[in-house]
Amino acid sequence: MDTTDITLENIQQAYARIKPYIHRTPILTSGTINKMADASIYFKCENFQKIGAFKIRGATNAILSLGAAALKNGVATHSSGNHAQAIALAAKNNNIPAYIVMPETAPKVKVSAVQGYGAEVIFCAPTQAAREETLEQTVTRTGAVFIHPYDNDAVIAGQATAALELLEEQPGLDVVMCPVGGGGLISGTALVVHYLSPQTRVVAGEPSGADDAFRSWKAGKLLKNEQPASLADGLLASLSGRTLHYIQKYVDDIILVDEQEIIAAMRLVWERMKIIIEPSCAVPLAALLNEKAAYRGKSIGIILTGGNVDLRNLPF
Amino acid sequence: MDTTDITLENIQQAYARIKPYIHRTPILTSGTINKMADASIYFKCENFQKIGAFKIRGATNAILSLGAAALKNGVATHSSGNHAQAIALAAKNNNIPAYIVMPETAPKVKVSAVQGYGAEVIFCAPTQAAREETLEQTVTRTGAVFIHPYDNDAVIAGQATAALELLEEQPGLDVVMCPVGGGGLISGTALVVHYLSPQTRVVAGEPSGADDAFRSWKAGKLLKNEQPASLADGLLASLSGRTLHYIQKYVDDIILVDEQEIIAAMRLVWERMKIIIEPSCAVPLAALLNEKAAYRGKSIGIILTGGNVDLRNLPF
Repeated sequence: MDTTDITLENIQQAYARIKPYIHRTPILTSGTINKMADASIYFKCENFQKIGAFKIRGATNAILSLGAAALKNGVATHSSGNHAQAIALAAKNNNIPAYIVMPETAPKVKVSAVQGYGAEVIFCAPTQAAREETLEQTVTRTGAVFIHPYDNDAVIAGQATAALELLEEQPGLDVVMCPVGGGGLISGTALVVHYLSPQTRVVAGEPSGADDAFRSWKAGKLLKNEQPASLADGLLASLSGRTLHYIQKYVDDIILVDEQEIIAAMRLVWERMKIIIEPSCAVPLAALLNEKAAYRGKSIGIILTGGNVDLRNLPF
Repeated sequence: MDTTDITLENIQQAYARIKPYIHRTPILTSGTINKMADASIYFKCENFQKIGAFKIRGATNAILSLGAAALKNGVATHSSGNHAQAIALAAKNNNIPAYIVMPETAPKVKVSAVQGYGAEVIFCAPTQAAREETLEQTVTRTGAVFIHPYDNDAVIAGQATAALELLEEQPGLDVVMCPVGGGGLISGTALVVHYLSPQTRVVAGEPSGADDAFRSWKAGKLLKNEQPASLADGLLASLSGRTLHYIQKYVDDIILVDEQEIIAAMRLVWERMKIIIEPSCAVPLAALLNEKAAYRGKSIGIILTGGNVDLRNLPF
């Protein structure tokens, strides 16, 4: 272990801190999917989590880890996805203001959700440069603390608590899988597994249309997504140095999946498990079904990351 | 109690019989929906049940209640819905043939599901008369036993076991709600509540486009649906004398809901609970939200009956 790596104690403290603000989500199984995969799959249902995704874990821990003085002017972030809602709700739970920079093209339903938690939304042009510039202006104007969606150890320690609960209920798994986008969840997951169940393999699924994690992991250096494109819109971000570090050190494999495989896996979960998952969330199951032979007979935990979909715009 | 009414012992025996063949489904809650209703709602998730609906309970009990001699030529029914799949799977589990009469207009996905369980599908014209005639011919040809979807005490005792599990986990509920179509589920539910928790009210929700139960209950005699029409396609059947008897005796209220209320309640559950329910299944929640004032502050169990929807044809 590097002396600077997040420790097991950090993660356990994060869990104690966030517990009053999150759901302990259920673990579900499906006879049909087990039969299809010829494996025993345990789905950790973070789609049932507050705000409909695991991101509330990291956002809550990041805010609670800061002292009252640091938080006196609130928190800020840029996101059009689940991290935006997570920061908005975590700020509301702590009675501090939240400022969320969103592209002016963000779906109204997502803007309303963030505003519904009492956060102020600041619109910007839909480019990475505009996002970062608008965020900087917002931080300067308000004095709020920026909470990055994944390049932040307190966020990673918070995301790690999903795997902590999974291993507590299902010790001795052969494999734990989750998707990789910016790498916050897979980093936290890999750390927990490393500390508590070192014989368990950690595997990430990634859309081939946004495959920077796969390429960076192979190359041993950061290679960004230039034109990421996938239905799995929660996984378009590129790794940071921090998340690449954890992935290099603690993740055993990254499996790429194409769009049709993502849609098929999403549909399978909807039809057979009768639960709603978003496209990003289907990626690890798609990866598993893609490399079925390697997982035959194994016990596999999959973190189902979220269920926030636009019901008027489904891919099937 | 009438000497001929289903007894608590009948229901407990049914439960012991079917237990190896069914899931004990989870009970979920939603903070958002509780807030909206200003009540504590416990959702019994039969959408997670085998075949995706509670009907496997009644079908399994009906088959297991018959002796080997009666079953030697298999079982038959007419249904294009969840009862068809339930009979097909229950027959398969017992290694006997099943013959399912379905209208030639039935969706292919439902026909395939039934055939997937190994049942023989016999097509007929899409009228009630053709169904009944084709069923009669099938029974004559094969010697199979007809298992009616609800006008059958063994089926009702089986359906009753969902409420048995609900009351075991959540004793002392103020109200238990479920939908009413032909009346099998509400009859079984009302009987269990009567025996185990007589202070608990039993309330049914019914689509106003197929309101025979409401009218029959008010009139004290069977009044059929002539041209039933509702998205809640599992609730188009009319009561039988048997189910009207149980409803008259043990059900406290029937609440009508319109199509828009059904769609809104279905959407609410999809969006907030991230679980898939079919339109029929949304009816009791729609009823509750329709008469919110009467249920304020109460603890309410709702049986979520099923999750079999055509994902290419959603009402929103």
